[in-house]
Amino acid sequence: MAGIPIFETKVLPEWIDFNGHLRDGYYGLIVSFAIDALMDRVGLDAAYRARSGCTLYTVEMHMHYLREVHRSDTVAVSARVEGADHKRIHATFELRRFGDPGVAAIAEAMLLHVHQAGDAVATAPFPAQVSAAVAELQAASAALPAEGPGSRRMGLRRPT
Amino acid sequence: MAGIPIFETKVLPEWIDFNGHLRDGYYGLIVSFAIDALMDRVGLDAAYRARSGCTLYTVEMHMHYLREVHRSDTVAVSARVEGADHKRIHATFELRRFGDPGVAAIAEAMLLHVHQAGDAVATAPFPAQVSAAVAELQAASAALPAEGPGSRRMGLRRPT
Repeated sequence: MAGIPIFETKVLPEWIDFNGHLRDGYYGLIVSFAIDALMDRVGLDAAYRARSGCTLYTVEMHMHYLREVHRSDTVAVSARVEGADHKRIHATFELRRFGDPGVAAIAEAMLLHVHQAGDAVATAPFPAQVSAAVAELQAASAALPAEGPGSRRMGLRRPT
Repeated sequence: MAGIPIFETKVLPEWIDFNGHLRDGYYGLIVSFAIDALMDRVGLDAAYRARSGCTLYTVEMHMHYLREVHRSDTVAVSARVEGADHKRIHATFELRRFGDPGVAAIAEAMLLHVHQAGDAVATAPFPAQVSAAVAELQAASAALPAEGPGSRRMGLRRPT
């Protein structure tokens, strides 16, 4: 597992599409749940959100779909913190099927810490404890091997 | 609407997360349904899939989340075909809330035509009729204005 184990889920029957395996959109839902788990891990949990009025918004996500995931599979997600600043976390998530060492999908996400007050949403700095927890995960991630291919500009022809 | 109208959906109550609006993963599910609609539009519909054993796989997706989408919203998706070759379609999808001209999210997807025979999956060329339909959508797309920001390498620091 190249990353920090963060989330697991059974594949639900309604996530299977006409191609006979996990619909592309549901790979993203699994990543979304893994982001929730990452939030819990660094102290951005429900109690923090209720107390502070702050939360994470996903502002960008890149997904590579590498292997089919089937109806009977359980998917394990590991996370890496690639970078962070006072209000953002850049994280990578790898999805694997139980019993298959190959990576089924890789998602990169940029996550932004915001304060919500009704319709007024403003970016907000992380509390020191959260920044420390994120830095700890980033250090742990740096010690682990990374899977490719990473994000990039999309296109049928790419500059060489 | 900067693109070809392709799909609409009400936001389902179970798509709303603890932040009080559409969960990031469900933006991707809406894009997934829009890809189905694009497939129907170019002749890669259920009858074609049953007859040919061929379908589209999503191999890569980039999403920018630009605006919150709320419980009572209906989301309209427009598509642009940015490029295509004998087996791939590079398409962009713009999501808008009914009554709001702003783009709520932009997704870019790379779609690959494959033949499925049990576990053996191989890329396959599009039939001529499908290629013609894709080319027609590409020409129509080129005549329409594009929204930014497009896909890119993700990171907290970018080369200038």
